[in-house]
Amino acid sequence: MIEAAAERLRGHVRETPILTSPFLDEIAGRRVLVKPECLQHTGSFKFRGAWSAISALSDAQRQRGVIAYSSGNHAQGVAFAAAQHGISSVIVMPSDAPQLKINNTRALGGEVVLYDRANESREEIGEALASQRSLTLIRPYDEPLVIAGQGTVGLELARQTADLGIEKADVLVCCGGGGLTSGIALALEGHAPGLRARPCEPQGFDDVKRSLATGHIQSNNAASGNICDAILTPQPGQITFPILNRLCAPGLSVSEEDALRAMAHAFLRLKIVLEPGGAVSLASALYRADEIDGDAVIVVASGGNADPEVFGKALEYLT
Amino acid sequence: MIEAAAERLRGHVRETPILTSPFLDEIAGRRVLVKPECLQHTGSFKFRGAWSAISALSDAQRQRGVIAYSSGNHAQGVAFAAAQHGISSVIVMPSDAPQLKINNTRALGGEVVLYDRANESREEIGEALASQRSLTLIRPYDEPLVIAGQGTVGLELARQTADLGIEKADVLVCCGGGGLTSGIALALEGHAPGLRARPCEPQGFDDVKRSLATGHIQSNNAASGNICDAILTPQPGQITFPILNRLCAPGLSVSEEDALRAMAHAFLRLKIVLEPGGAVSLASALYRADEIDGDAVIVVASGGNADPEVFGKALEYLT
Repeated sequence: MIEAAAERLRGHVRETPILTSPFLDEIAGRRVLVKPECLQHTGSFKFRGAWSAISALSDAQRQRGVIAYSSGNHAQGVAFAAAQHGISSVIVMPSDAPQLKINNTRALGGEVVLYDRANESREEIGEALASQRSLTLIRPYDEPLVIAGQGTVGLELARQTADLGIEKADVLVCCGGGGLTSGIALALEGHAPGLRARPCEPQGFDDVKRSLATGHIQSNNAASGNICDAILTPQPGQITFPILNRLCAPGLSVSEEDALRAMAHAFLRLKIVLEPGGAVSLASALYRADEIDGDAVIVVASGGNADPEVFGKALEYLT
Repeated sequence: MIEAAAERLRGHVRETPILTSPFLDEIAGRRVLVKPECLQHTGSFKFRGAWSAISALSDAQRQRGVIAYSSGNHAQGVAFAAAQHGISSVIVMPSDAPQLKINNTRALGGEVVLYDRANESREEIGEALASQRSLTLIRPYDEPLVIAGQGTVGLELARQTADLGIEKADVLVCCGGGGLTSGIALALEGHAPGLRARPCEPQGFDDVKRSLATGHIQSNNAASGNICDAILTPQPGQITFPILNRLCAPGLSVSEEDALRAMAHAFLRLKIVLEPGGAVSLASALYRADEIDGDAVIVVASGGNADPEVFGKALEYLT
């Protein structure tokens, strides 16, 4: 399915490069290879899964349109992929999502429906709207076509690391519901078995790390209240968790301050813009070096839709 | 020479991608294709020319080391390329260069010698040190091997635009002494004759634009005093100007405010970090649209070594 998704994505997705800096290597104590998915269309890897799912719809489904619920990056990915396919999209977003993500989703052609993250269930709202309007629901992670699309990051990584002569390394992946991490893990299983995916999360929202440690799905206590808004999902998915559990090495978690500091280093050394939830993988490489194995580490920097205020906060670590 | 430089650079330089955003297209009124050389090693295209020149030295020359004068980006490019070749470098930098560039040049292995941009000539200082210590001087732009290295940007653009089906377009290039612009113009002449290079400069420091308009080398009145520090050269080079004069379409110039605003849009829409001097090309595409021809415009965003304070200033345009 990942290879089929790569075929459908060809010519529509950006193959993101590998970026490096001797300054980052020095902090991490090993080679750091960063795959900047912030440079993907709509500023995050989510465009891959959205395109994968929408491009696989039947003509009848496309005519009726799609719906998605998302804290913002999946929203933009689905809205843009839908617009590119010439179809309509409804996006259910939390009212406390960064204003930038809400505005962008609208500007990209999505019809935005807001909900209260603390008291309402986006799943229920999304599924109700989907059935009322006969829309196809594109789930953010617990959907095989979406996982397959995100897995194309892993196919690219397998080629890129082979070109660089890297056969064995940890691959750090920012992890919310586990769509990106499980997709990458599946792609690496087939194409680069020496690379192992490791989910990275914010401290206090490390449901995947705890689920992997116990072998059973664990939930977070809170639904919001962390700067890494893009990856605050309540628990790993029913489809993603068994994949993560079978293929991933232990999870890593970092503080909000570590995420902001990693954003500052990405600005200074790689010239890329990361959002906090897209920087927890780089933060893990830089500040959890003793939990990582090998001479090189691969970092999937998953998104860059940072509000200017939050980015300014990160830059304060440099002055 | 450009093709030979591309051979020497293979495996050492990054092929930078092409980035786009529907939001930028809307402002510019045409498709905007951005080649982000800020993602190059050391944060600017200058690494290409530096590597091209150093990789062509004889063993005896390498043993004695190299020297360069630079406002900062050529400095970092030469220091890093020299270190990668295992040779020493002396870098003559203006005392008012951004502190970040001075620090980085030292950290990359360069021996930094500071001078007063208003009262001293970097050319004289550079040539005196070169002869005292038998160092090979690597000029920032008026040097065929350096121009050939920068020209590899044009070779990549020729391939990338052909893949995108673009045969005719203006190519906007941030221009100081003209090394990058002349190198790109030469590469396009041979490989994509429908693309024409156009130098972009800060208002008040538009020596190249005026030189092209009059057909003779013109100088700037001031040597400093503009936020676009990377491209404040006194006049086009003796080698670069005849190339620019033969191949380039008219120059474009933008205000400091336009450069900062373009940096903000690059942050928001492309998730890349540009410095003011690396953003004048994007600023020209966005704010000088009526001086540009065609359905698409290509923007070479040449560098991203922005001080955090300056970047913060650019972000203020978003809030």
